[in-house]
Amino acid sequence: MSARLSLQLRSLVRGNGELELSLASVPIPEPAPDEVLVRIEAAPLNPSDLILMFGLADMSTARFSGAGASSVVTASIPEKLMTAMAGRADQSLPVGNEGAGVVVQAGTSPAAQALLGKTVAVIGGATYSQHKCLKAAMCLVLPAGTTPAEGASCFVNPLTALGMVETMRREGHSALVHTAAASNLGQMLNRICLKDKVALVNIVRKQEQEDLLRGIGATHVCNASSPAFMQDLTDALVATGATIAFDATGGGKLAGQILGCMEAALNKAAKEYSRYGSTTHKQVYIYGRLDTSPTELTGNFGMAWGVGGWLLTPFLQKIGPAAAQKLRERVAAELKTTFASRYARTVSLAEALQADAIAAYGKRSTGAKYLINPNKGLDS
Amino acid sequence: MSARLSLQLRSLVRGNGELELSLASVPIPEPAPDEVLVRIEAAPLNPSDLILMFGLADMSTARFSGAGASSVVTASIPEKLMTAMAGRADQSLPVGNEGAGVVVQAGTSPAAQALLGKTVAVIGGATYSQHKCLKAAMCLVLPAGTTPAEGASCFVNPLTALGMVETMRREGHSALVHTAAASNLGQMLNRICLKDKVALVNIVRKQEQEDLLRGIGATHVCNASSPAFMQDLTDALVATGATIAFDATGGGKLAGQILGCMEAALNKAAKEYSRYGSTTHKQVYIYGRLDTSPTELTGNFGMAWGVGGWLLTPFLQKIGPAAAQKLRERVAAELKTTFASRYARTVSLAEALQADAIAAYGKRSTGAKYLINPNKGLDS
Repeated sequence: MSARLSLQLRSLVRGNGELELSLASVPIPEPAPDEVLVRIEAAPLNPSDLILMFGLADMSTARFSGAGASSVVTASIPEKLMTAMAGRADQSLPVGNEGAGVVVQAGTSPAAQALLGKTVAVIGGATYSQHKCLKAAMCLVLPAGTTPAEGASCFVNPLTALGMVETMRREGHSALVHTAAASNLGQMLNRICLKDKVALVNIVRKQEQEDLLRGIGATHVCNASSPAFMQDLTDALVATGATIAFDATGGGKLAGQILGCMEAALNKAAKEYSRYGSTTHKQVYIYGRLDTSPTELTGNFGMAWGVGGWLLTPFLQKIGPAAAQKLRERVAAELKTTFASRYARTVSLAEALQADAIAAYGKRSTGAKYLINPNKGLDS
Repeated sequence: MSARLSLQLRSLVRGNGELELSLASVPIPEPAPDEVLVRIEAAPLNPSDLILMFGLADMSTARFSGAGASSVVTASIPEKLMTAMAGRADQSLPVGNEGAGVVVQAGTSPAAQALLGKTVAVIGGATYSQHKCLKAAMCLVLPAGTTPAEGASCFVNPLTALGMVETMRREGHSALVHTAAASNLGQMLNRICLKDKVALVNIVRKQEQEDLLRGIGATHVCNASSPAFMQDLTDALVATGATIAFDATGGGKLAGQILGCMEAALNKAAKEYSRYGSTTHKQVYIYGRLDTSPTELTGNFGMAWGVGGWLLTPFLQKIGPAAAQKLRERVAAELKTTFASRYARTVSLAEALQADAIAAYGKRSTGAKYLINPNKGLDS
């Protein structure tokens, strides 16, 4: 391999309904005066990355071929989902929202030169690549002594978790509910809420997730698999007064159950009958789709309610650059505490395209988050 | 019956799961200085009234007894719905949101005295009553030559229809979608939109509803029972650019289908692939529950979306008294044109509690709206 070529993970949806994941050899760009070249050493596989990477393909149909830099994964996309993929058909897309690495080359500007040799966190796509060229101003310089692995998840999860608490405050709520609450993100949110003294109701599906959260200090943990779930959730909502929830599952009955229990909790406190239910607005924001079945809302929660999509980027745009910068500064300051992430395994680009790895990180399950080191096992 | 007693329709949910509708004889109050006594001569049976009146009872179980002022209807409430009724259990509630009639007695204040003999529209509950006592300032004096029947629906439907257009403008949309569009409310909305040059996509379920709307000048009418519905709706959304909908059905797949078609319409105009779908916010407000099955959202509409409840009273509170007054003045000025309502039949209080009447207006179907004249067939 030439010194001026670099490997990059690509996702391609063919018009015939085939997904292809492969490693492309791309020329390493020469940084412009205000740019730097980062050798990426750690990039997390977030659920939002998997959406782009797998492109609605049925990964149970995956076929694996080649090895090393020639590894290829193909899988079929169900025909009825192909209309949703029309916009990206036949375009080979780089993957990876965020990551961290070392600045190995810099443009001529002083700002770029100042970063040479520094460990930085980056966002903006194509981080499952050996190298990424970007504006120096877009890099977040990590505090001295921080490894790329420690700084790999500086943006998506930390800013999402902070964004939830910020949204709660800006929309007039005083406590919040979170589902899939034992995730990396959920643990982070739990640490933020403990530190900021915000009451948090954690919803999980398994006993070990409940234990994990209680072990890190969570007060309200409700197990959706328990027969007492609806009562437990209502009790936790009475105790906390939470009227806003962030739901990572999206599909199924959970969002509607949360609204129904919020309504029941509010009505316990109500003094007279209101034919349209509680007048307090109850909100569920869906920010993920771990459950891809339809969202089912039973309607037993009056008329003062909303369900909607929530995404980090529009949220940051809405609050404006100054407020967003404050959130970023908090992440940098608390990177090894509040915003620490854990990974089950670190893989190379080629390892990320093997059957065992995809079977593990593709499940998106608690404790199965993977980190890619695009320069693992290769000359840098 | 004593001259100082008045009949009033009451809805009672008993703790044992029984609904009872009956006519109570209540004393006619003496107006305070700033109050007037209105002899109600016309009050519509709106869907929102039926919610309070029937209280989730299964009306197919209805039993009828008595006659005239002693008419009684009883029906069973499914046990699983009784928790939602707990707040009103064992309270005999008067029914009827709005209506119109003649001021037959007035308090001593000049404002009250000025209304004596006037035909006025009223809102605020208990209009399925022979008499209603309320503050003079709460009465809307109808233009000379207006009958109580013509003024009976001055508030709920007209302000709801105007509120939809106002919400569309305030939330940054430029065209709107309406379901159950051939209803009295839908026809009103169609007239407002034609007059204000706002593009409106009407969704109906039957050919005769489509014909009705086209007959009164509607351009975009989509029939949800047609096999081409999704394509027709998408085309209408491309043509109008509508990104907000008001849905009277609430349950079932319709709200999600509207969001999905909005997304498809937006993506037709999109220039590059966005992994999270269109960035334009798509909104469906549910303001009724003609379909009481769960709301099912398939999630094929990206992340920039919202579904929520919409009610007139909180909307009017949000826009404030000055803006609300402007809407009311428009209603009074256009009462016989834009805001005219039609009714299938006018019934007395006793007739409203007979099997044939409940079978008709209880269906909430297009063209089956009833008007109650509480003083029909009785001395006033």
